[in-house]
Order: sequence, then structure tokens, then C-alpha cells
Amino acid sequence: MYFHKQELQFKATPDKPDAVYARKLQEVLGGQYGEISVALQYQFQAWNMHIPGKYRDMVFGIGAEEMGHVEMLATMIAQLLEKSPLGITEDALQDDPTVAAIVGGTDVQHAIVAGAGARPVDSNGNPWQGSYITASGNLLADFTANENAEMQGRVQAARLYHMTDDHGVRDLLSFLIARDTMHQNMWATAAAELREKGVEGFPVPSNFPQSKENQEVNYQYLNFSDGKAAADGPWASGPSFDGKGEYSYHDGPTTSVPMPPPTHPDVRLYGTTELPNVVEKTAGLVQDTLNKE
Amino acid sequence: MYFHKQELQFKATPDKPDAVYARKLQEVLGGQYGEISVALQYQFQAWNMHIPGKYRDMVFGIGAEEMGHVEMLATMIAQLLEKSPLGITEDALQDDPTVAAIVGGTDVQHAIVAGAGARPVDSNGNPWQGSYITASGNLLADFTANENAEMQGRVQAARLYHMTDDHGVRDLLSFLIARDTMHQNMWATAAAELREKGVEGFPVPSNFPQSKENQEVNYQYLNFSDGKAAADGPWASGPSFDGKGEYSYHDGPTTSVPMPPPTHPDVRLYGTTELPNVVEKTAGLVQDTLNKE
Amino acid sequence: MYFHKQELQFKATPDKPDAVYARKLQEVLGGQYGEISVALQYQFQAWNMHIPGKYRDMVFGIGAEEMGHVEMLATMIAQLLEKSPLGITEDALQDDPTVAAIVGGTDVQHAIVAGAGARPVDSNGNPWQGSYITASGNLLADFTANENAEMQGRVQAARLYHMTDDHGVRDLLSFLIARDTMHQNMWATAAAELREKGVEGFPVPSNFPQSKENQEVNYQYLNFSDGKAAADGPWASGPSFDGKGEYSYHDGPTTSVPMPPPTHPDVRLYGTTELPNVVEKTAGLVQDTLNKE
Amino acid sequence: MYFHKQELQFKATPDKPDAVYARKLQEVLGGQYGEISVALQYQFQAWNMHIPGKYRDMVFGIGAEEMGHVEMLATMIAQLLEKSPLGITEDALQDDPTVAAIVGGTDVQHAIVAGAGARPVDSNGNPWQGSYITASGNLLADFTANENAEMQGRVQAARLYHMTDDHGVRDLLSFLIARDTMHQNMWATAAAELREKGVEGFPVPSNFPQSKENQEVNYQYLNFSDGKAAADGPWASGPSFDGKGEYSYHDGPTTSVPMPPPTHPDVRLYGTTELPNVVEKTAGLVQDTLNKE
Amino acid sequence: MYFHKQELQFKATPDKPDAVYARKLQEVLGGQYGEISVALQYQFQAWNMHIPGKYRDMVFGIGAEEMGHVEMLATMIAQLLEKSPLGITEDALQDDPTVAAIVGGTDVQHAIVAGAGARPVDSNGNPWQGSYITASGNLLADFTANENAEMQGRVQAARLYHMTDDHGVRDLLSFLIARDTMHQNMWATAAAELREKGVEGFPVPSNFPQSKENQEVNYQYLNFSDGKAAADGPWASGPSFDGKGEYSYHDGPTTSVPMPPPTHPDVRLYGTTELPNVVEKTAGLVQDTLNKE
Amino acid sequence: MYFHKQELQFKATPDKPDAVYARKLQEVLGGQYGEISVALQYQFQAWNMHIPGKYRDMVFGIGAEEMGHVEMLATMIAQLLEKSPLGITEDALQDDPTVAAIVGGTDVQHAIVAGAGARPVDSNGNPWQGSYITASGNLLADFTANENAEMQGRVQAARLYHMTDDHGVRDLLSFLIARDTMHQNMWATAAAELREKGVEGFPVPSNFPQSKENQEVNYQYLNFSDGKAAADGPWASGPSFDGKGEYSYHDGPTTSVPMPPPTHPDVRLYGTTELPNVVEKTAGLVQDTLNKE
Repeated sequence: MYFHKQELQFKATPDKPDAVYARKLQEVLGGQYGEISVALQYQFQAWNMHIPGKYRDMVFGIGAEEMGHVEMLATMIAQLLEKSPLGITEDALQDDPTVAAIVGGTDVQHAIVAGAGARPVDSNGNPWQGSYITASGNLLADFTANENAEMQGRVQAARLYHMTDDHGVRDLLSFLIARDTMHQNMWATAAAELREKGVEGFPVPSNFPQSKENQEVNYQYLNFSDGKAAADGPWASGPSFDGKGEYSYHDGPTTSVPMPPPTHPDVRLYGTTELPNVVEKTAGLVQDTLNKE
Repeated sequence: MYFHKQELQFKATPDKPDAVYARKLQEVLGGQYGEISVALQYQFQAWNMHIPGKYRDMVFGIGAEEMGHVEMLATMIAQLLEKSPLGITEDALQDDPTVAAIVGGTDVQHAIVAGAGARPVDSNGNPWQGSYITASGNLLADFTANENAEMQGRVQAARLYHMTDDHGVRDLLSFLIARDTMHQNMWATAAAELREKGVEGFPVPSNFPQSKENQEVNYQYLNFSDGKAAADGPWASGPSFDGKGEYSYHDGPTTSVPMPPPTHPDVRLYGTTELPNVVEKTAGLVQDTLNKE
Repeated sequence: MYFHKQELQFKATPDKPDAVYARKLQEVLGGQYGEISVALQYQFQAWNMHIPGKYRDMVFGIGAEEMGHVEMLATMIAQLLEKSPLGITEDALQDDPTVAAIVGGTDVQHAIVAGAGARPVDSNGNPWQGSYITASGNLLADFTANENAEMQGRVQAARLYHMTDDHGVRDLLSFLIARDTMHQNMWATAAAELREKGVEGFPVPSNFPQSKENQEVNYQYLNFSDGKAAADGPWASGPSFDGKGEYSYHDGPTTSVPMPPPTHPDVRLYGTTELPNVVEKTAGLVQDTLNKE
Repeated sequence: MYFHKQELQFKATPDKPDAVYARKLQEVLGGQYGEISVALQYQFQAWNMHIPGKYRDMVFGIGAEEMGHVEMLATMIAQLLEKSPLGITEDALQDDPTVAAIVGGTDVQHAIVAGAGARPVDSNGNPWQGSYITASGNLLADFTANENAEMQGRVQAARLYHMTDDHGVRDLLSFLIARDTMHQNMWATAAAELREKGVEGFPVPSNFPQSKENQEVNYQYLNFSDGKAAADGPWASGPSFDGKGEYSYHDGPTTSVPMPPPTHPDVRLYGTTELPNVVEKTAGLVQDTLNKE
Repeated sequence: MYFHKQELQFKATPDKPDAVYARKLQEVLGGQYGEISVALQYQFQAWNMHIPGKYRDMVFGIGAEEMGHVEMLATMIAQLLEKSPLGITEDALQDDPTVAAIVGGTDVQHAIVAGAGARPVDSNGNPWQGSYITASGNLLADFTANENAEMQGRVQAARLYHMTDDHGVRDLLSFLIARDTMHQNMWATAAAELREKGVEGFPVPSNFPQSKENQEVNYQYLNFSDGKAAADGPWASGPSFDGKGEYSYHDGPTTSVPMPPPTHPDVRLYGTTELPNVVEKTAGLVQDTLNKE
Repeated sequence: MYFHKQELQFKATPDKPDAVYARKLQEVLGGQYGEISVALQYQFQAWNMHIPGKYRDMVFGIGAEEMGHVEMLATMIAQLLEKSPLGITEDALQDDPTVAAIVGGTDVQHAIVAGAGARPVDSNGNPWQGSYITASGNLLADFTANENAEMQGRVQAARLYHMTDDHGVRDLLSFLIARDTMHQNMWATAAAELREKGVEGFPVPSNFPQSKENQEVNYQYLNFSDGKAAADGPWASGPSFDGKGEYSYHDGPTTSVPMPPPTHPDVRLYGTTELPNVVEKTAGLVQDTLNKE
């Protein structure tokens, strides 16, 4: 169960209105790596988790915190829009290029659809969608997904920090960036523990019998481009990260087979086939079948 | 530039047709973590990369390989569909529950739309979409995204391995799983090198001045759920993963502010406000404005 | 801020596994009118609301409750999947049509992607999306959207009630249906109060000066189909619902104008125009322009 | 069957070109609550309706009218774009910020994709989609959906009215707003009749045996937020809207159960489980199974 | 304006219920090449057309007809679902594999969401979307899009014809296939006329000055695969289709340039760059900038 | 298999940065008719093709070339963004309307998400999706789809040519337009050969027995709009394009039937039916059924 408290974790009030920036801020609210994504990702991971205890408690705990981050951003966006020109008649005058530029740079649905409110979309207006999130039940894979999500999120928040000089906005971003710092650290720490304790390891899933994978190519670097520098990387020679193999470098594939012949499915699927006079012949086949029905 | 060779990297021929399995195999072709995703993800990362040399050569090299994996899966799917019942009249008889079950379990668009061919969709028929991929220009973030993609992909391929006993299909999965093993290792190795050489480090992005982030909460574990076990994790005390802080555990938030007051945007956006007799009053305001135009 | 408690509002445990039903239950979790929709819809309405006090408190209060409903359904789905055949080798035998039918009727991503866990999708596997929700800032419009959402949700839950005889599932649905009963009543009551107190009224938005709308057609029933029975409805004569007009019935439109002539945009947009010898002429125009550059 | 007449229901000609406004107007053509939505929503309701006579005739009649509204808006948009700067070379000069602002504020696909024509998208360029519409077969639910759609549509049209001072555009909006007035009234009148005649009633669906819903919580207001003002609403005490219950107010849930234990699905789904030395153990289990195949 | 008549263009009544087939039939209603696509495609082409007269009249005329085809299919689907098992308790018994197979093969939203009604989705349940349609304003391009749409549609309808032996369904498909025959012919005839009269020609757009296109590669067949048979095609030698060039065959590209160097955008976008000690250096740059603000 | 070479087919370097144009160029990279669409469309056609030899070799050959076009555009976009104002603090000053207009006209995700890199989206930021492509297995249908794709693509590239005066960009477009010229010609030539050799013909699919289609309406022009000029077209009289019929013109439909009666599905789907006192009666029916369980 979830309980709401009418407080924010941090001050989310801008110094001044800025509808163009409100649009940009939507990215970290409703984008691929926005707060809705991490909030729901962590909650689905908790609901799908097969282990009770500290991992699940942690995922539940952070999932609920992230819902509060969605709230801080939504609150901030509504205030950035509150007194800003949104295309209402007097501020849409084509004579004033500054106002025109501002209105043109906004998410116009902020005004038309939400009446100066936040929306569950990214900075280009794409609605948030369930396909952004990851919850596979495999903890090392999912914690790596989380680590990535916090990295991408912090990168975006840092970029957004430089796109405004509003102190209120920067203070909120400063807070969110700090939480991303913690969360990146936390997922990395948790993933390391999973590996150290042998709960999950490399390669994921670590309990698929590795003898069942192809033994020839599982530690080969195969170069399908003509840049040769990849051979200099630590992935091209020496022991593999998982300690189970030895990297080797190869120009192109080490295996290949001829392409299988094209398929010939049922003629009544009306694909084109190579027979000469194919139209007459296959029409006959179809007609015969129909006659028999 | 890309060049195609009419060979496959590995044999992709099933022992027998199986349209239901063909549908399942679509997941690793056109799903969130399917081969189209990694192929395009790596290529976009290469095109957006700011460093020449081994990292970019590697990303180009693997991106092209993954295009060939898309091809192997598409070829396999077409063959799984080739002679399989797809709902054509005689095999759709309601009298035979086995055939009905098979047809019901297929991706019906395989027959209706593609004429027994592969499609750029996942196992539920959702079209592949550009929002699956990640290419931020920050290499540690992106390599972590890649590591996750290869983990999720290998988990899915391993699951699919157990959903068939067709040796042809299993051989191909065995090959793809082996390549996922290599690729997981490779991204982990590359990420480690980035950190070791100080090209990128924790937290990402590592060159955002950390003094600009909130100094109070950046290493605090804040528990927003009532499970207490999270306090036992290595993320709740001791040195942080990045070596720059010390974790501490807190039940709930350590900071909070009252929620800011509700916004009052322009009355002509027709949001509902708290004024008594609001309809009459705001209608008057709007009318006044209109009169002045 | 949101706080999580590791309890459920109601028992969410099935008597027996049922992966086919798990798929169906996804509709009320992640569908257009599922619990994610109402949870986020109410929260966005709260964040965008312009009135402090009872309306906002209510919307916050229910939004948080609905997050807990998402949780109950996700928990239920994971248990329905826990021991159910999901296409793992031995249960996928084509010899057993019952098992084949079960596997064919499942959401195959439950197994392949989520490892027997719930997902943020509907019963056809479409990812939940932000475009499902409504938060306009106008309370009468939004409360009507909520009333509809609770109606559609209760209709779906009632249908699902008849699609299982599992007592555990039915008990949960019985609880959710009861909450839908309350919520339908609540939105209707709140909407009635808005109208009675003149905060908002018909037509919405009630403070747009009605003198500015076309005075001829605002209470006319215009029949664009040839069924005549619509004339018998209470919307075709008598006083209007808002008490401000008198309904009248008309066969077809009461107004019409000739269609404006086709547009002729810039020739360099390469639309086809009606000029004879248009290719030569417009190519000349384009060439002239290019020459001048 | 549908027949087209080359007339418009109302004049749809702007006084002057305005490509930025053309983009905004797309919202009420192809947005969530645009005219395509209501046109197709009403037609699908008619096709799925189980009652002949006045309700179906009405839905057919309005559905066809709304197709004509789509047409008026498309025609208007094409004219707004006809002579407007769309980024063609001479008007894209960066030296003129006014032109740059205009071009930047347009839907660039209007020029690139449609050659100065209308598109089936909203004001942010999101394509219209079938998931916007509602047609459940339950008339009270669907008419409430319709009432909401006309309310949201009229709110948006009213906002758009204030975003232009073009008399041609305003005249068209004035017409559309008037029709929304009629349609809001009509759906409210029809819904009231359904209730009065006992065809459908509260709660929807009214013929689900209410004895089957949980009798404890079906009229309880449960407050999951800490704002107390919700207790003052008419939904927190007194008789319920449907006349079948008595509202009561409660701080938080009145029921709760411990969360069920985590699930343990088949080990071959490779979720992470709590066993110590889980990698070795489960790898053994998988290997055993594979050996037996 | 559009007017509806409560008649169908052709009988749309099945002999017997068939919910599995109802799902399949959704493809030609709401799929990429279903009737909603052609209906809206033709209407948008009409609204965006720059030529009055026979072309526009034709596009309007067929667009309205296609709306009636949507209606016939929706009506048919509702009847196929009317008495069919849809998962309601007694027909969902796992003991009867035939019923389980039927229910598993249906679109479960037909029952849960639409209450045995048609939906604006394809046969996999993907909602119809505006991005399926094409209306560029260039008639030869658009008529070719239409020709393709009618071809794909007729292929799909022919496949569906073989997936049922219900005479009522086959009669309707026989009608729709006949109309596809007419429409394919019509678009081909119209496109031929456009070319013959010089209104549009090859290559489209024909009035872009061909001198402005690269003169080296505009009639070269460049083979980026290693199959050599493409050299035997009529596109590899001889006069080009447009009569303006001569085809030639080349193995691989005839032109190439080195890839430009990687980009180095603003350091505050936090992309990874090749500098040694990059973290320290760029952190310093960012700090300097921040200090100056 | 695919191999990458670190060269471009043509120079893709702009003279100067232009972030607004970078957004526009996304259309031909990741839009409905962008290079990702044709690249994947041709490859899927190759993988699904049933004929070995020249057609398949050609489709493979061009598919790989198009991947290189994606690369050229991505490279170009990254360079257009490299030094362009992207909203970083100092260039976002509201005092400078020119900069504000530029920033407002960009794809803001270019900066926030991709760090000045290209993205797999169209010019409005919609992610590329698998539903854009066509690969039916029927070659005449698919080659017509390809012909259309190259036409729409060339129209868009020509429009984009006029939206910049940057010589580097224009040179690249000049190259891409030339390749579109070749590809339009090629698909038209290949389609003509299919028809001439009787491999496929009109109407597609040509081997569906035409006797099975309705013989009355297959060459009738039926006019559902009131514009009469369509009767003057070559599709309204004379021999049909396929040479198998004679066109005739008709005002409106030549066939019609009454609409079938509304459906009455299972009462437990809770659709509204016409019975008087329906609530009581159907509630009784449902209760009876539940009692029997």
C-alpha cells in the first residue's frame, strides 16, 4: 500500500516562470529515463522479486521515493508555466519575436490540454509508455538496468542544470542529481554484492549451464567493421571479465554457413514464387483446393 | 557503409516447423531487448561518439555483427513458419483442438500480413520502436546500458532455450547465448577500463562538479517503505562505491518542505479555481478581455 | 511524498495457478482503464489543481490508494503465473492440446520477458501509455473523466469476475468492484457539488462567455444519419440539460457553405497542381529560384 | 454507408495564414479529444450497440456529423498553412528572428511530410491512435465517456479561441464550441434518461449483483493522503449518490493483510532466488533437466 | 460533410459465430492496411489536394465508400462474437481443450473491453494509428501509396478468405476483394494518366530540377551484397524507366569519402571525449563556466 | 551477414552548424519514409522472399546501401548540432530572440537525451517504429510499396533541399535525391518485369481465382461524394488497367442491404440492452447463473 503526505522532499519552486524550460524538464519527468520510469521500474521489480529481505525492501523503498520525485517535478513544471506566456492572445503577437520564440519553444499541449499543468510525456511530447521499464526477475540484470537508468538520468539532469540559471530550478536539480549519485552507488554496490555472494554472476543468467553455449565463439572478439583499433582493447586479449575464458581477436566471423534456401509456404498465402507462369499455375492450385471444399 | 554477404554467421535451420515458437522467437528479434535494439543502439552510439579509436571501432564492429543476428533470427522464423499450420482452411478445423491450439497460439499477423515471414515486432506483436535504444554520448552510461541489454537478452534467450526441444533452434540459441556471454564480458571490461583510466567514473557524468550537488543527501539511504531489512545492505553503511562518501541509513526522508500553494494560471485557460461564484466572476473577466480586443 | 507499507489492502492470493487468466487480469492493471491509469490520472490532477482543500485532498487520497491497487493486481498476477505452464519444454508438448491451448492463450512475454512476473501492459500486451490519462485543470471535466474511468473499470472487472471461478481471484475482484462502486459515487457526488455551488457548470467550461458561441446551433439536434428515432429522444425537444436553451430537431445540417477552393502552397513543396504542362512550368519556377540564390 | 457532400457545415476560412496556429489547431483535429476521436468513438459505439432505436440513431447521427468537423478543421489548417512561412529558404533566414520564431513554432512535418496540408496528429505531432476511443457496449459508461470527451473538447476549443485573433478561425471555433455545448447537453440528457428509466443505473454496470461486491468498503471514503479536508466533502458522510449506501470517512485503509510471500517460479526462468550458493545449485537443477531430455 | 445511411453496401452476416476469426478479421479493419487506413488516407488526400475536379472528386468519393467498409467489417465482427465462447465461466473450463483453444486464440479485449464488439485495432490488438496514412500533396506519390494499400489489402483479404469456410464471411470478403480489384485498377489508371498528361512524372517529384541531383549515381545500380544475379535484372543495364538515363551495374559504391572526424560538442553536455585525464579537465571547464555565471 | 566500412558513400559535412535544420533532417532518417524504414523494409523483404536470384540479390543489395544512408544522415546531424546553440545557459538568454527562436525550433532531446547526437526519431520526435515497414511476400505489392517509399522520400528530400542554403547539406541531399531517382526507376522496372513475365499481375494477388470475387462490382466506379467530375476520369469508362474488365460509372452504391439487427451477447458482458426494466431482469439472470456455480 502507498500513503501520500502533502509535503515535498525538497523545495520545488522556481524564481520565475519559464514555459520553454518547463517543456525541457518534462524529459526527466516522463521521458525514457524520467522519474515515472524509475518509479514504476522499481515497483514492478519489487512485485516480481523472488527473494524476501533486504533487496526487496530496498527496491520498495526507492520506488516510493521516486514517486515523490515525479511529484516534485510536476509541481515545479506547473509553477514554471503559471505566469508564463502560453500563446494567449496578447502574448502571441507576431510583432514581438521574443514572445513568439518563447511560445514556439513550449510544449503547446501544456496550455491547450493541461491548462498550464504538467503532463506524463517527455520533452518532445511523446507519452510515457510501459515499454520503457525493465523487470525480468533476474536481479543482476535488473540492477544493471537500474544503474544505467540512474546514469542516464543524472546525465540528463546535469545537462538541464546548464540550461537554466533559475536558482529555484537549479536547487531542485542539485537535489535530484545528489539522489542519482546515491542511487548509482547503491545499485553498483548491490550488484557487486550479488556477484561476491554468488547469488548471480557473469555471464547473466549465471545458472544457465555454460557448457550448453557454443564453446567456440563465447570469448572471441569478432570485428565486423574495418577499424583495427578495437584489437587494442582489453576485450581483445587476456582473461575475460568473468574469469572463465580468454579473449581473442578476429577480423570478421570465425564461423559461417551458406544461407538456407528461400521458404515456400502454402500457395494460398499468395507470396510470389519462382515458377515460370506462376500466376496460371498457382491460380490453378488454389482453384483446385477451393473446388474440393 | 554497410556490405552484405549472403552467408549466415551460424546455421539457422530448424528441425521441424513450429509457428507457436516462431512467435516466441520474435521477442529476441524485435522486442525491447531484441537484436534490432542492440544493432541500432550500437550503431547510433558509434555515430554519436566523440572519441575516435578503439571504443568507436568496437561499437561499429559489434553493431554490424548484430545486424547479422537479426538476419539469422528472421531466417529461422521464416522456416519455422514455412510448413506450419497457420489457420488456412483445412488446418483451422474446430474439431481438432491441437491444431486449433497451435493456430491460436501463433502471431496471426505472421500469416495474414507477412505470408509466413518474420516481422519487426516482439512476441506480443508490438512493433519495434526507436524509444528502445540508448545513445547519450556518455560512454560509461551507454556501456552500462549495453551491459544491461546483453544481460536481458541472454536471460530471454536462455528462457527460450527451454521452450523448445528442436535441435536446430537450440543450436542457434546456443550460438547467440555464447555471443551474449562475450558481449556482456566485453562491455564490463570496457566500462572498467573507462573508470580505471579516468575517462569516466562514478557517479556518471563524472565531470559534473560534485560540489554542485546537494551535499546532504548524496550518500544517504532513505527508506520510504516499512521493510527494515534494507538497513542491512552494504548500501546503508560503510564507504560508497565511488569511494567519495560514506553511506548512512535513514527511515524516510531527511529533508522536507511544505507543498507550494496551487498555481493560478491565466483565467482563459479555464481551469477551476477556488473563488466563490467563480463562474460569474471569471466569465466577466474573460468577457472584459474579449471586449478590449 | 509517497510512503510504502508492505501490506496489501486486501488478500490477493489465487486458489490455483492460471496463466491464461493472468493475461486477462493485465487489462485492469495496465489497460486504458486499468489501475495505473487511475492512479496516475488522479495524481496528475492533484499536481495540476488550482484549488487547495477538500477536492485536492480527495484526489491525492484516492490516487495513492490506486497505487496500492496496482500492487494487489501485480501480486496476484505473479502468483497466477508461479506454477502455471508457461511453455517450458515439458509442458509445451504438442501432443497435449490442453497444455498447448493454455500456453497459446497466455501473454508469452510473462514468461520470456518477466520470468513469471506482472507487466505494465494490457491484456493484449500493449504497453501502458501516458496518453490514457486526463488532467485538464477543469474540475467538472476531469471529474467526469474520472466517473467514466471508474465505470469502464467496474464493467471490465465485472466481466473478469465471470471469467474465472477461482475464489481467491473473485474475492479480490469483489473488493475492487466495491471500491469502484464507491469511486463512481464519489465522483458523481463531487461533480454535483461543483454544479450546485456554481464552481463549474454546464456547458464546461462554464465561464467561457456563451454569447461568443454560435447562437444558432448550440441547442439543435442535427441528424446526419437516416434513422428517425433520434427525434424521439429527450435531447430533441424540450428544455436543455443546462437549463439555458431549448432543444430542437433537424434532419441534417441547418447551416452549410461551399467548400473553399483548394490551396496552392509554395511550388517548392512539390504538391501536384492543376496547371497543364505543370512539370515543365513548375520546374522552371523552381530553377529560377535556385538560380537566384 | 457514408455519403460525402462537397460542402462544409460552416465557413472554415482564416483571414490570414498562421502556421504556428495551424499546429495548435491539430489538437482538436487529431488529439486525444479531437474530432477524429469523437467521430470514431461514436461510430464504434453505434456498431457495437445492442439496442435499436433512438440511442443508436443518435450515435450514428452525431458520428457522421463529427466526420464533417474533422473535415472543417483539416480544410482550415491547409489554408492557415497555404501562404505561411514554412522554412523554405528565403523565409528561414536566421537574421530575422520573427520568421525564425514562426518556423520554429510550427509542426515541421506540415511542410516536410504533408506539403502544407493537415495531418492525423495532435499539436505535438503524436499520431492519432485507436486507444483514444471508448466503446464498451454499456451505454451509461459510454455516454459518460462521451460527456467527458465533449467537455475536454470544449475546454480545448475555448483555450484555442484565446490564442488567435483571426476572425475566420474564431468563427469556426465559435461554431464548434456551440456544437460542443449541444453535445454535452445531449449526452447528459441521454444519461439521465437511462438512469430514470432503469435501463442503466449507478453503479455501472447496474445489473452486476451488488451482493457480490465487498460489503464493507463499497461506501467508505478511505484517505491515503494526510490532507484532512476530504472529510468535509459530501462524499464522506450522508447518503451515497446511488441512494443505496451511506458514506463514511476513514483515515487510511479499513482492511489490510500481510503481503503474500514472494513467488518461486520454474528455475529455468532464471529469476534470482534466495538460496545460498544459488548459482551452483540452480545450474545443477537445470543441467539435470537438460540431461533428461 | 458526411451523411450516414443505415444500410450496408453488402450483406455482412456470418453463418455461425467464430471469435477466433473475428480477431483475424480485425486486421483488415484496423491494421496497417485495413479499411480505417484507406478511409482516412483518401480523405486526408482530398482535404490536402491542390487540384479541384476529377481527381479530388474521386478521392472524396472513395474515401466515403471506405468508411462504409469499416462499418461492414465492424458489423461482421460483432456478429462473429455474439454467441461465441469468450471466456465466460462455463466455456473456459480447462477440461475442454477445444474451448480453451478457442478462447486462447481470441482477442481477449473483444470480451473484456468491448463486450463482444469490434475495436479500432489490428489482429494483434495494436491500436490503429495516424502514422499508417500518407497524404503528401504529390498525386503520383500518393496514388502509388494508394495502389500499394489496395494491393496489400487484397493480399490480406485473399489470405483471410482461405482461413474460414463460413459462407457469410466469404461472401463479404468476395465483395471486398472485388472492390480492391477495382481500386487497384483505378489508382493505376489514374497514375498512368498523370504521367501521360505530364501532370507528374518519373522521378517524383518531377519538377525538381534534375540537374540539381548528383549526375553520377542517379542511374547506377550499386550492389552492396555479394549476390551477383542482380546484374541480370533490367534495372542493371539498358534505358531507365523514366527514359532519361541509362542503367549501369557496379559492384559496391562508385563513390566514397573518409568518415568525418567525431564531433566535440559543448563540454556541458557531458559526452565522453578522448582527452587524457578527461574527468579532471572537463570538470574544471564546467566549474569555470559555473563560476562565471 | 553485414560488414561495416568506416567510409561514407558521400561527403556528409555541413558548412556550418544548424540545430533547427538537424531536427528537420531527422524526418528522412527516422520518419515514416526515412532511411531506417527503407533499410529495414528491404532487408525484411529479402529475408521473407520465396525466390532466389536476381530479385532477392537486388533487395539485399539495396537494403545494405540504405543502412549506409542512415549513417550519412546521422553523421550529418551530429555535425549540424556540434557547435550550435542547444539551450546551454549563455545561449538561452531570453534577451536575444534569435537565439531563443533557434533553441525553440530544435528537437530539445538532441541536447538533453543525445548530447548533440542523432536519434532514431522523425522531425517531430516520434520514435521510428516497425509498423512503418511492409514485407508481405508478394513481390508486386511489395515493389509498389517500395516505389511509393522512394517517391515520398524523394519528395521530402526535395522539400528539405529548399529549407537550407548550406552547400554541404545540399550536396548530400543532391546525392540522396539521385539515389531516390535510381531506386524509383528500379522498382518500377522490376514491377514491370514481374507483370510482363506473368510472375505477378493485376490485380494483386494475381493467382487468387478472380471468379471468386464478386462479379458485379469489380470494375464499377461507385461515387459516394457529390462531385460529378470523377465520371470524366479514365477509371469511369473504357477498358480496365488489367485488361480484364470494363469500367462503369455509378452515382453511389449499386448494391445495398438493410443493416443486420443489433447483437445480443451474453448478459454477463454487461452491455446495455433494450429490455424494459433491464437492470432488474438481467441482474436476476446473472444472479441465477452465479447461484448455480
